[in-house]
Amino acid sequence: MSHPQRRVLGVDPGLTRCGIGVVEGSIGKPLSLVAVGVILTSADLPLEQRLLQLESELEEWVAAHSPDVMAVERVFSQHNVRTVMGTGQAAGIALLVAARRGIPVMMHTPSEVKAAVTGSGRANKVQVAEMVKRLLHLEVIPKPVDSTDALALAICHIWRGGGNAKIEEALKAEKSRISKLVKK
Amino acid sequence: MSHPQRRVLGVDPGLTRCGIGVVEGSIGKPLSLVAVGVILTSADLPLEQRLLQLESELEEWVAAHSPDVMAVERVFSQHNVRTVMGTGQAAGIALLVAARRGIPVMMHTPSEVKAAVTGSGRANKVQVAEMVKRLLHLEVIPKPVDSTDALALAICHIWRGGGNAKIEEALKAEKSRISKLVKK
Repeated sequence: MSHPQRRVLGVDPGLTRCGIGVVEGSIGKPLSLVAVGVILTSADLPLEQRLLQLESELEEWVAAHSPDVMAVERVFSQHNVRTVMGTGQAAGIALLVAARRGIPVMMHTPSEVKAAVTGSGRANKVQVAEMVKRLLHLEVIPKPVDSTDALALAICHIWRGGGNAKIEEALKAEKSRISKLVKK
Repeated sequence: MSHPQRRVLGVDPGLTRCGIGVVEGSIGKPLSLVAVGVILTSADLPLEQRLLQLESELEEWVAAHSPDVMAVERVFSQHNVRTVMGTGQAAGIALLVAARRGIPVMMHTPSEVKAAVTGSGRANKVQVAEMVKRLLHLEVIPKPVDSTDALALAICHIWRGGGNAKIEEALKAEKSRISKLVKK
């Protein structure tokens, strides 16, 4: 069975910098970069204006690239209490834009993304960025890192689509590692 | 100087239950209830569908009551880690709806609301509900509590508008009490 070609818009949510990456591909075929960038909103603006700007620019990205699917990083409230609320709200805006246009949306955890792209749920940012560059045949790593993370999300989504065994294995390995650490 | 009459839409954000209360009044004049209710979204729906439904029902409330201002409870990531992300995202949707329509929006902390309505930043939910009932000349306390909280937010907003000294005093008392507790 061949897997359908899909165009995925990945969102690495954030208020100050929201990474966007659009990738096309299917399981077992080469991936291609469609577009990459970052939405910036100023910390000097009131929160509601930042959310409104984010919504309007996300709408533009979606209109410009007509993705089949959106992939958004799942935000956990455990990390970085100071900024997590804005990050979660930015993710909420991305979900809203997808739902409004009837675009299917899925959330992936950072570990799932790392496992999908590098084969290890513990990979660091540099390793993820290097793999994104290689997988998309880029000359340089896109900057800022939020945009590379968004591309990694999109790649993760394409590869998880078919229930990729390698990703599930890497995740299982990471889970068992963590549960061993907790037991110690 | 007389204070202008204002119609405030208060939002006690939540995904499962989002309280809405519309109050009209000005500092030093009797307050009046315009409308009160709750937006419910089902936990069985995907998050993006819940956010979309919340947005659409909030839009209906705003269209129906044309508030001058929106008052939204400020959500802290310290409390209740399990549900805080959904609550924060619901607040984000309310801010977005306000910003899109050019309605000024302000956030108030739970302590600020309690201080405004009861005179004490430490009041419990029953005390707040009783005061809301009395201030709005209601026969019974509106249910669920989220809707009463939304009315309290709207009242807080009306009274804080003019820099009400009593609220600031109650807040100062509460802050100094907490800092003493922390020092102990």
